[in-house]
Amino acid sequence: MHHHFLQQAIELASQNVADGGGPFGAIIVKDGAIIAASGNRVTPNLDPTAHAEVMAIRAACRQLGDFQLNECTLYTSCEPCPMCLGAIYWARLAMVYYACNRFDASQAGFDDSFIYDEIPKQPAERTIAMHYIELPSANQPFQEWYKLDNKIRY
Amino acid sequence: MHHHFLQQAIELASQNVADGGGPFGAIIVKDGAIIAASGNRVTPNLDPTAHAEVMAIRAACRQLGDFQLNECTLYTSCEPCPMCLGAIYWARLAMVYYACNRFDASQAGFDDSFIYDEIPKQPAERTIAMHYIELPSANQPFQEWYKLDNKIRY
Repeated sequence: MHHHFLQQAIELASQNVADGGGPFGAIIVKDGAIIAASGNRVTPNLDPTAHAEVMAIRAACRQLGDFQLNECTLYTSCEPCPMCLGAIYWARLAMVYYACNRFDASQAGFDDSFIYDEIPKQPAERTIAMHYIELPSANQPFQEWYKLDNKIRY
Repeated sequence: MHHHFLQQAIELASQNVADGGGPFGAIIVKDGAIIAASGNRVTPNLDPTAHAEVMAIRAACRQLGDFQLNECTLYTSCEPCPMCLGAIYWARLAMVYYACNRFDASQAGFDDSFIYDEIPKQPAERTIAMHYIELPSANQPFQEWYKLDNKIRY
């Protein structure tokens, strides 16, 4: 079953190249049925976050009317990049299966492996420098969130 | 100038809590002017990827009609999580400034620090297990992409 759905994700990635997108495809399955599928649509949608996994997660959430995908499995033609890995954790998927890895993606000209290598660096020393500025009100939004009685945790 | 925009991102985060979103805000600036801003809209939008940074990046791309934000700076009320860090790299922003960090977010009940700790693990040993399956056609989408004459790199 896992081979079957992963094979479909690869075929979707191929189809997506023909359709003007990047060479990546992702499928989300719940209870043995596909509930969402997408190729990478970064350049056609002018959206750098429109990776196949992110697009499929958004579509699955719309399908279920939920911001969590606890009982769902993701099949993706390539190992998720850090952005997609983060999206998978925030969506709380049950499991992920992948075919290619970050080094295959790198050979094809994509930054997946490069971004993984940036993460352990000190924020200010990354290629895209991330600078901390100390401001007295920085924690105020968290304090307001903490005090909120009817907050929806995610 | 950096303090000014970062302060605005914090105020946006506070406003966003009042508006039913999470306690995070992000602003994107180009040539000294704000071109996009958003709070975290995960629960109101039923979209686990709707973090403030991702939403602001998407909005800035729509604003510029581009999938890259090379000359833009991101101001965010809290250190980007791995998903948002990835989005920042894919959008190729110039610089990031942040106020709170991943440990402040963790204290407020958010998984940012937990997800950072998951990344260096072997994929199959993560809390959300990511399993590699070897399939003979795995690299076919990359090969098709490679052969494409008119591909748009991203």
